[in-house]
Amino acid sequence: MKILKNVVIVNPGEKPYKGFVTIEKDKFISVSPGDPKSQGIPEEDGCGGWLLPGLVNTHGHAGSSILRGAGDDMALDTWLKTVMWPNESKFTEETVKAATNLAMAEMIKSGTTTFLDMYHLFVDQFAERIADTGLKAVLGRGMIAFGTEEEKQSRLEASKHLIQQFHGSADGRLHIAVTPHAPYTCPPEFMLKAVELALDKNVLFHTHCAETKKEVEEHYSTYGIHPVDHLHKLGAYSGKSLLAHAVHVTEAHIDLFAAHKVSISHNPMSNLKLGSGIAPVAEMIKRKVNVSIGTDSTASNNSLDMVEEMRMAALLPKGRQEDPTVTNADQSFSAATVGGARALHLNKTGMLKPGWFADMILIDPKGLHLQPQSLEKIKSHILYAMKSSDIQSVWIHGKQLLKNRELTTLDEEKIIYEANIQAQKLR
Amino acid sequence: MKILKNVVIVNPGEKPYKGFVTIEKDKFISVSPGDPKSQGIPEEDGCGGWLLPGLVNTHGHAGSSILRGAGDDMALDTWLKTVMWPNESKFTEETVKAATNLAMAEMIKSGTTTFLDMYHLFVDQFAERIADTGLKAVLGRGMIAFGTEEEKQSRLEASKHLIQQFHGSADGRLHIAVTPHAPYTCPPEFMLKAVELALDKNVLFHTHCAETKKEVEEHYSTYGIHPVDHLHKLGAYSGKSLLAHAVHVTEAHIDLFAAHKVSISHNPMSNLKLGSGIAPVAEMIKRKVNVSIGTDSTASNNSLDMVEEMRMAALLPKGRQEDPTVTNADQSFSAATVGGARALHLNKTGMLKPGWFADMILIDPKGLHLQPQSLEKIKSHILYAMKSSDIQSVWIHGKQLLKNRELTTLDEEKIIYEANIQAQKLR
Ligand SMILES: [Zn+2]
Ligand SMILES: [Zn+2]
Repeated sequence: MKILKNVVIVNPGEKPYKGFVTIEKDKFISVSPGDPKSQGIPEEDGCGGWLLPGLVNTHGHAGSSILRGAGDDMALDTWLKTVMWPNESKFTEETVKAATNLAMAEMIKSGTTTFLDMYHLFVDQFAERIADTGLKAVLGRGMIAFGTEEEKQSRLEASKHLIQQFHGSADGRLHIAVTPHAPYTCPPEFMLKAVELALDKNVLFHTHCAETKKEVEEHYSTYGIHPVDHLHKLGAYSGKSLLAHAVHVTEAHIDLFAAHKVSISHNPMSNLKLGSGIAPVAEMIKRKVNVSIGTDSTASNNSLDMVEEMRMAALLPKGRQEDPTVTNADQSFSAATVGGARALHLNKTGMLKPGWFADMILIDPKGLHLQPQSLEKIKSHILYAMKSSDIQSVWIHGKQLLKNRELTTLDEEKIIYEANIQAQKLR
Repeated sequence: MKILKNVVIVNPGEKPYKGFVTIEKDKFISVSPGDPKSQGIPEEDGCGGWLLPGLVNTHGHAGSSILRGAGDDMALDTWLKTVMWPNESKFTEETVKAATNLAMAEMIKSGTTTFLDMYHLFVDQFAERIADTGLKAVLGRGMIAFGTEEEKQSRLEASKHLIQQFHGSADGRLHIAVTPHAPYTCPPEFMLKAVELALDKNVLFHTHCAETKKEVEEHYSTYGIHPVDHLHKLGAYSGKSLLAHAVHVTEAHIDLFAAHKVSISHNPMSNLKLGSGIAPVAEMIKRKVNVSIGTDSTASNNSLDMVEEMRMAALLPKGRQEDPTVTNADQSFSAATVGGARALHLNKTGMLKPGWFADMILIDPKGLHLQPQSLEKIKSHILYAMKSSDIQSVWIHGKQLLKNRELTTLDEEKIIYEANIQAQKLR
């Protein structure tokens, strides 16, 4: 048992207050105002820092982190054909290891405690490293339905194998999702098999959907139906379902998401950078859709900084709709924490609450950009002024992974060295 | 004379290269590839850091920094009437001193070396402190044309006085602009006097213009003309002219800006946060308008972080136009440096060049979010991944104002203390 005292407790949906938390093993026993009554329990002093639930990144591709900055300012087609695919075809197990280590280190240092990752290479090995590192994750084998029937079947088998081997492992930190890449890379018959697998195993179904206007138009011309409706027809919304992007959707689609409890992973920076557009998230939140936030990969972002991402999730709808009242700080904070956990169907995650998992981040409130401050302004500062470099410490399931900005389970210098070595090999 | 060696020279419009700079007094003598041939000149080792021209923030209101987080997620009218005006009416000289000190410290720590500021209170005192602090600035007396004829005249007189006393002072670091607040707060007859004053004194004319759709509509209904055209009619574009925002403008206006060399201060975060919209800056750049970047005040941003601002300037047009090719990293970097200096009509500022002022910032390239790296990827990383916390050191006119993230001319702790004291007095 241990106590972290002298902190400001900042939960989505609640007013911040001064208090302390008591942790036993992986969970909070108490989250309380005031000071602890010392009873021989080891106490750590939070020095007035702001204690937040850890950030939840609901969409990414850690394996391509090594391609940060490899191609910018290009049309999606050109980018895929001249940057992503030629490079990824050269990836070895060592490339992906270096990339995923880089991503994990960057995520911890920017306050992400839980993430979803979809990738097609060396997912087993990544799962094992996540278990060692202490992060909490939902992993999926990215599946594109090209090649022979055997090859397609083997991707579904790989997903099944991942579920059997890892779902619920690492003391409950590791979960598996079924993650076909997208309706435009997976024809209906394959998508249906993926849907059935997710339903059969009762795991999360996750795919990219309605990211660009072109995707929607082409889907219409091929299948005569919008991809969001197509997935509905295929049964994709009858279990646990999370769609990445959903930029080009109608009000009827938003109502469909709400009715079927389909969550959305909103990726504001990636959608801007690839020229996909700005998703109607204020409308989604208004109509009770569970909106969460993701970074997508560093190849289209170009960082994994959830602090900037949640700021953009709050700011973009105001600009898009020319109305500053359509979003507020607490909504985005909620989307980046408990909304993310809800999107991933992870229990007891995303808030500082007795009985919930002790996933938390401690913010150093001394930065000039966080002044002046008062309890009432803390959420405003977190959303509209805080930087990820203000994050001092990070705990997941009660275990400290970042301590005064030093990683405790990963070797930062070695990771940087390896990432550069592996990137050079791709030239 | 001194040398900063072992750095990567990163200029807008040029490929980054390894080299060194030699500085004498306030200017660069040389900016060269390779290593210096030691000749008894004191040498500092940049340890492979990236050396950039200092960032130029072309629009702000430092005096209201104390109102950071005082009101968010509100309509502009409500915000002005319930937050800004009631608070500013209570401002004393001490409030504004605390606010401007906070802003200066925040700007230096986030890499801003030059800024434009428009404010209506205690501008003389701010000018004197800027001289001491070492920052480079263009200051203007914000003028709203309400009250009696004498009161209006006194504001113009205050502007005239500022020009006489400070323009070109502080070894050329301090400049004065004529800054009427906006066409909607300054009727044509007053605006005309401001225009004439700027022309007469050959100083910069700067005002807010076409920030919101409502402003444009109301201007039409009052005067039967768009505010951009109205300013043109009043002669505002015949001298040195810079408009803040220009969100709601037409292609014809953009051509007008280009023809008259009117620069624009694009404030992406403030425009989003206040629900003003997204300015058509890609179109402006395409049509050869000089676009610069500003933060506006922390009351509508809520930070003075030019690194995030230039990232948004690059990303927003891609999303707005659903085309990733409409902007690129170098354009935004240019807008945040030499484009800003050009907008402020400051000579020899905004690039690392022999004979130019030694305004520069040194980036620590060791962050995880800046990996992997190579010379070709540096500009991508600066625009799409760098954080202001990566800025290690800052020099203005050859003088170091930030050293390993410590301010050399300002007392950070005292500034934070005073900002909080003064904010509490407003309650
Ligand atoms: Zn993705
Ligand atoms: Zn302004």
